[in-house]
Amino acid sequence: MKKGISASKGYAIGNVFMKKESKVSVEKRYIEDIQEEEKRFQGALDLSKKQLQKIKRKSEKEIGKDKAEVFESHIMLLDDEEFAGAVKVKIKTEHINAEAALHDVVDSYVKIFDNMEDEYMRERGADVKDVGNRVLSNLTGQGSFLSEIEDDRVVIVAHDLTPSDTAQLDKNKVAAFVTDIGGRTSHSAIMARTLEIPAVVGTNDITESVKDGDFIIVDGIEGIVIINPDESTIKQYENKIKKYNEEMEKLKELINIETITKSGKKVEIFANIGKPQDVEQVLKNGAQGIGLFRTEFLYMDREDMPGEEEQFQAYRHVVEKMGEKPVVIRTLDIGGDKKLSYLPLPEEMNPFLGYRAIRLCLDRDDIFKPQLRAMLRASVFGNLKIMFPMISSVEEFLQAKKVLKQCMNELEKEGKKFNRNLETGIMVEIPAAALEAEELARHVDFFSIGTNDLIQYTLAADRMNEKVSYLYNPMHPAILKLIKKTIDAAHKNGKLCAMCGEMAGDENSIPILVEYGLDEFSMSASSILKAKQIIMEK
Amino acid sequence: MKKGISASKGYAIGNVFMKKESKVSVEKRYIEDIQEEEKRFQGALDLSKKQLQKIKRKSEKEIGKDKAEVFESHIMLLDDEEFAGAVKVKIKTEHINAEAALHDVVDSYVKIFDNMEDEYMRERGADVKDVGNRVLSNLTGQGSFLSEIEDDRVVIVAHDLTPSDTAQLDKNKVAAFVTDIGGRTSHSAIMARTLEIPAVVGTNDITESVKDGDFIIVDGIEGIVIINPDESTIKQYENKIKKYNEEMEKLKELINIETITKSGKKVEIFANIGKPQDVEQVLKNGAQGIGLFRTEFLYMDREDMPGEEEQFQAYRHVVEKMGEKPVVIRTLDIGGDKKLSYLPLPEEMNPFLGYRAIRLCLDRDDIFKPQLRAMLRASVFGNLKIMFPMISSVEEFLQAKKVLKQCMNELEKEGKKFNRNLETGIMVEIPAAALEAEELARHVDFFSIGTNDLIQYTLAADRMNEKVSYLYNPMHPAILKLIKKTIDAAHKNGKLCAMCGEMAGDENSIPILVEYGLDEFSMSASSILKAKQIIMEK
Repeated sequence: MKKGISASKGYAIGNVFMKKESKVSVEKRYIEDIQEEEKRFQGALDLSKKQLQKIKRKSEKEIGKDKAEVFESHIMLLDDEEFAGAVKVKIKTEHINAEAALHDVVDSYVKIFDNMEDEYMRERGADVKDVGNRVLSNLTGQGSFLSEIEDDRVVIVAHDLTPSDTAQLDKNKVAAFVTDIGGRTSHSAIMARTLEIPAVVGTNDITESVKDGDFIIVDGIEGIVIINPDESTIKQYENKIKKYNEEMEKLKELINIETITKSGKKVEIFANIGKPQDVEQVLKNGAQGIGLFRTEFLYMDREDMPGEEEQFQAYRHVVEKMGEKPVVIRTLDIGGDKKLSYLPLPEEMNPFLGYRAIRLCLDRDDIFKPQLRAMLRASVFGNLKIMFPMISSVEEFLQAKKVLKQCMNELEKEGKKFNRNLETGIMVEIPAAALEAEELARHVDFFSIGTNDLIQYTLAADRMNEKVSYLYNPMHPAILKLIKKTIDAAHKNGKLCAMCGEMAGDENSIPILVEYGLDEFSMSASSILKAKQIIMEK
Repeated sequence: MKKGISASKGYAIGNVFMKKESKVSVEKRYIEDIQEEEKRFQGALDLSKKQLQKIKRKSEKEIGKDKAEVFESHIMLLDDEEFAGAVKVKIKTEHINAEAALHDVVDSYVKIFDNMEDEYMRERGADVKDVGNRVLSNLTGQGSFLSEIEDDRVVIVAHDLTPSDTAQLDKNKVAAFVTDIGGRTSHSAIMARTLEIPAVVGTNDITESVKDGDFIIVDGIEGIVIINPDESTIKQYENKIKKYNEEMEKLKELINIETITKSGKKVEIFANIGKPQDVEQVLKNGAQGIGLFRTEFLYMDREDMPGEEEQFQAYRHVVEKMGEKPVVIRTLDIGGDKKLSYLPLPEEMNPFLGYRAIRLCLDRDDIFKPQLRAMLRASVFGNLKIMFPMISSVEEFLQAKKVLKQCMNELEKEGKKFNRNLETGIMVEIPAAALEAEELARHVDFFSIGTNDLIQYTLAADRMNEKVSYLYNPMHPAILKLIKKTIDAAHKNGKLCAMCGEMAGDENSIPILVEYGLDEFSMSASSILKAKQIIMEK
């Protein structure tokens, strides 16, 4: 048995199909006819581009537009003159073969990315490697390893799967996959969840423990793999699989049912989204609203600040799609670990205790106002609510409301429509806000408890820091007290209390949150049905 | 009028004496006889060393051994072969005059220090400059500007005062000083407080606003300077000075009096110390104990971990000096912003939310145990109590007690003496600890509220970060609630509640803390008498 990380739930039993690491020769050879070599390289580039466009179209259909975007960035890399140009210059000046030139250029790119602190940027290094391997395969005429699968429903075992590998997986041929490296948030893990292919990643050395044709069980729930199991284990898992499938069917029946606890209380289940395209998944899983629409996506991966109009279109798209269902949009939460290339911020020793979110917005009207104006204008197209992050006192909330009022007055003068009565609330994610919940509840329309930060601050433990992540405990009595206090304060003032942190979708926490009387659970779309089931049983 | 930073309290009225910035020529000249030039440089080095030894002895007597240590480091720099060697090599290879060679070397040192992130290291750059100027003055035969003071009781105005300038100040000749730059924690500010010379620093441009002989008032309470005041202002300040002196006399009468509030409650006033030498100041100000003995000093500014024996001697010194008065020693609080060169710790994104204090100690028996053993052994020489920092749960405290128990058993086997009944308590500085105070109070012997961190975490605002320091508010209702909660929990369980954060010595906060029933206020020795007065009036 091997222990790994559960990347995508579900079970599979089948024969191992090993992904051969492409042993393409990148031996450096002297090339006389460099023009011919350049042409050969260009040919491989063109072919790669065609392949990627095909994969992208397939992915858009099967796993959604947003997740297919990674291939657009792969195509852009192929089109990037700096990248292709560097290879061509190498061929020309060093008189070497295209494979060797490409290998060198990819290598230098990957090194740069690998040294970056940002996890997101390090993953971009994997993208470059992925694209590089594709071009290399095309130069040598070698196809994808996936085309070699002949058996039915194999379990792919690989050191790692690239996003393009994963996107090409065919559910009829691939029952599951297992890799040496990777984590829950790697591209291939995310894609596996969307494709609903069970997967275990981060096993360290699965590729050294099995060989082609071995019989294995993949347990995507526990994150384990059993190699050449005996009869009784197989029997046991066949039962598990049967139960799991029945369970899945049962969950699907919950999609359009109201969430009512055993004690008769109606509870709302909402979804958290990060991009307008996520709305499809939200509706598919029967969420009754969007409890947290993170707006950072609009600001990231670009060269300049998004304008009011662009933001307006994005917000309008979401509220229109959601119809009468509420959409809670959170104002910009930049700073901390999230930086923008075009917004230079001071280097901070403790960014989580620093200049971020509402603190930055209250300091920068030029950023805050266009966003608020865009939200106000979108408010006439549906049920939009505004939520302010990182509020630590009543004064801060009133300050934010004042800026909102200014925006209303401006829009009114300009003759632009907006909903003057739209609701405004706050994230309760700073201990001081939870402690002052009674006072705050008198002013806001709703609370939404942000457990990720609340736990972090209350226990003084950065959950991203592996040396202290053991302290990060949502069930610490101090955390539970603050949550209860916040819910009680809201109710005492006739206000609604939601939760949009990870705890809201955590199966272990849900029962106690129901007991505390939480009104609204907001979580990632994929957790909704399971959460609904637990709540209804409570 | 000019506004600056109050560096040392008190008032002064007098004539300005400008410190001329030494305009020593460092023009580069070609030197034929380099041997003679080297000799000239060595002569200036020797003279500088003699002067510094004299200043050091004087300082030890007047301002205390620990504060005189800065001159020992100056002397060491003069003895440092790398420093003097670099100048000599320059003279030899470039055939230039000693002044120019020295100037270049000092400059390159200062640049290196200036670029360091650590404030402590940046200040070392100022030390190098100070020493360099001294050698330069001796090369050119120019003496200290202080020797030129002829009038009685002048007010020195300077761009900056070096530690050696400040140490040489004579209270009979210098009524106060005012500088363009500097802060409350700069060397010269600390020395001014010990010498009890009023000082205002950080005025930005006082040197451009006054000239020699101008008549000025220095208000070290408000941190302001009044240039050429009119008659009525002078009159007003003469009154203030009279009152201030009377007040000072009155405060001194409080030294040996018990601190009892108007409502009849006896309150203890303790002192915080950072080094064994600080005990003298503690006793001089009549503190009834040491509420926080920071042990980091033992670990800093050295090449390796201090041994058990060395620590034992340091702790024993303090408890013996304090006699029957309690001494609360805090276990190592390293990590966060405090690093040790010989203890490599992981780089952290948010060190204040990271691997520090008790978290590190519980993880590293090799560091924790020798310290606990040293404390235990010292416990037979006085009234020693042990305090654990950064406790976030009952489990953590019990874990720490378990290690302490192991140390007791070891010492017992070895036949070494210790006080088995010594008291153990915790710092309440993490919001979770304050929220769980009732539960914790059942297990500990005492609490000590660490307001600096408690405020920081509860408001999610790093007080060292100037972009958010406006949020750092000890009077935030959430902070007051946590303090009250902690005191009440202690009392409910018959335990003592102290406070050793800056808030305990803050004149604005003291009345409310008295009202909440805080048992023990622990603060820097210099704040004790004033605090006593406020408490007794409450």
